[in-house]
Amino acid sequence: MKLAILFGGASFEHEISIVSAITVKGKLRGFDLSFIFCDQDHRFYLIDGSKMKAVTFSRGEHLKMPQISLVKGGFEQRGFLSSKMHTMPILNLIHGGDGEDGSIAALFDFYGISFIGPRKEASMLSFDKHYTKWLANSLGIKTLPFEAITQNSRNSIQTSYPFIVKPARLGSSIGVSIVREAQELEYALDVGFEFDEVLLIEPFISAVKEYNLAGFSVRGEITYSIVEEPQKAEFLDFEKKYLDFSRSSTVAEASISDSLVQQLQAAFKTIYTPLFEGALIRCDFFEINGEVYLNEVNPIPGSMANYLFEDFSGGIQKLLASLPSKKEIRVNYDYIHSISQAKGK
Amino acid sequence: MKLAILFGGASFEHEISIVSAITVKGKLRGFDLSFIFCDQDHRFYLIDGSKMKAVTFSRGEHLKMPQISLVKGGFEQRGFLSSKMHTMPILNLIHGGDGEDGSIAALFDFYGISFIGPRKEASMLSFDKHYTKWLANSLGIKTLPFEAITQNSRNSIQTSYPFIVKPARLGSSIGVSIVREAQELEYALDVGFEFDEVLLIEPFISAVKEYNLAGFSVRGEITYSIVEEPQKAEFLDFEKKYLDFSRSSTVAEASISDSLVQQLQAAFKTIYTPLFEGALIRCDFFEINGEVYLNEVNPIPGSMANYLFEDFSGGIQKLLASLPSKKEIRVNYDYIHSISQAKGK
Repeated sequence: MKLAILFGGASFEHEISIVSAITVKGKLRGFDLSFIFCDQDHRFYLIDGSKMKAVTFSRGEHLKMPQISLVKGGFEQRGFLSSKMHTMPILNLIHGGDGEDGSIAALFDFYGISFIGPRKEASMLSFDKHYTKWLANSLGIKTLPFEAITQNSRNSIQTSYPFIVKPARLGSSIGVSIVREAQELEYALDVGFEFDEVLLIEPFISAVKEYNLAGFSVRGEITYSIVEEPQKAEFLDFEKKYLDFSRSSTVAEASISDSLVQQLQAAFKTIYTPLFEGALIRCDFFEINGEVYLNEVNPIPGSMANYLFEDFSGGIQKLLASLPSKKEIRVNYDYIHSISQAKGK
Repeated sequence: MKLAILFGGASFEHEISIVSAITVKGKLRGFDLSFIFCDQDHRFYLIDGSKMKAVTFSRGEHLKMPQISLVKGGFEQRGFLSSKMHTMPILNLIHGGDGEDGSIAALFDFYGISFIGPRKEASMLSFDKHYTKWLANSLGIKTLPFEAITQNSRNSIQTSYPFIVKPARLGSSIGVSIVREAQELEYALDVGFEFDEVLLIEPFISAVKEYNLAGFSVRGEITYSIVEEPQKAEFLDFEKKYLDFSRSSTVAEASISDSLVQQLQAAFKTIYTPLFEGALIRCDFFEINGEVYLNEVNPIPGSMANYLFEDFSGGIQKLLASLPSKKEIRVNYDYIHSISQAKGK
């Protein structure tokens, strides 16, 4: 089964994506794998499997490998006299900007390339945490209350301390701070605004229970991962998260009641269907007084959350065999024909 | 001033886009214009200005013109031995799918091509009328109440008759019906579901006042068009709308109070800023009991709503000189360097 892993991207999560791709490479069995690196200038390179090491990219060694371009139906490798087409389906593993903001999905849809990953609408609604709340609430799923602030409204925060400050459109804990008292605020806002023009302010609940659940749909039937209770040092900073993206050993299942598992799965299904079809996503939930709250959706989780699945390779194979296809629209020029006939032209 | 008009697309509004492009061509003065046609299979053609007639496309004559491809920085025209780059800014005039759903915006952003039109986030939020309501409501702008229904929920509509049925993600009145009584419902739903999987149901208010206002921002300052009270035969069907897309003579200004004009402009500004920067959009409003309601946002209005502006050419020139640029992200590989050093590699 052919599959190309696409990673990199012009994103604050570029390096994390490299780590993630290397990890997923080690976890996929029974595939004929290729590797496509998107550099920060949006050039694509076909990477030799034996060179899939982080230093290949930090040292710029990918520049010696074949450059390929996106064309209808796949990637084209131009030679001096002829060119070669690469037409395998793609696993979109570009975290953050490009990969999760709908750009890659739009490109692949436009050029008719089959891919695992969120489609553009799903990307847009999960990339901005603000829109994720609109989505969840419209589906009857609870989320924490929030304020969205910009530089202009940074002095008018209403939420009581302690609260979390996070960029609206970034994952991987980049630019996130817990603010416990007024004197910590300015610095936290400055850090956040380094990464985004909009920050979300949410109450910080110190002993809140967190549960992560991943899954994907194959012909209408969802395969759920085990539920994980993430280990947290308050919450993950970027460096810890970086290591987190290279996780490959299966984690222990959270010891929670069957009824809570069912609540989490039901919330997952409501969010997932049909918007996220074609993607393996991870939903991060809170449990507060017996009720499930959606924290965020990771439409391309670090290392595809492989560590939450018993049969990760088998799951990816099934997902690949059931990717959604775009509805084709045919134009018949009826109106132009009727108008030009009426004009006698 | 160089500018290429991009039109066509794989969309139910493909033909309307052709009409729109021909109209805009006739209205732009002082530009060095080119024309790029996107066919229904997503191939791009460079169209000779003298061949900008509807029948060129319905007869397939564009197939004889040079095919071009999207590459970094522009469109490439490949020749036998060499290739030529076309690097002018683009006016995105693809209505409906592709143009207004964020695909074209994502492609141009990704390849660093300057364009007039909604960016991808603005596209997604205005293309689906359902999301437009979330957006408007979050900004304190009123919209009509609605239900979103799918095939599964078609029998559980709660809205009282008469109501409007419209596809969530199409413009140009395609698939829209007024349903006055139960016996008209099934047919209206069948028509709507031909075009989209999600339909919106909204109360139909027969004598409601409608006002259209277009505008664009140049360095933070919005240029508003005149306010139009659209002529309606209840509402426009596709064929009338088709002719509507070829409008080129300036319309009469609605005779309304200054205070209503200010209300409409204030609502426009709230919706527009900063999400729609780079685009000339038209907002269609209702006025109900002295209050302004947003009906929909047209992020690429038919023939760019040229007929609402006194100095359309001058406006497009100013907009072109003030297009937003994407924030560049540079990757420095700090984390990979620090990790590979720690490993002693």
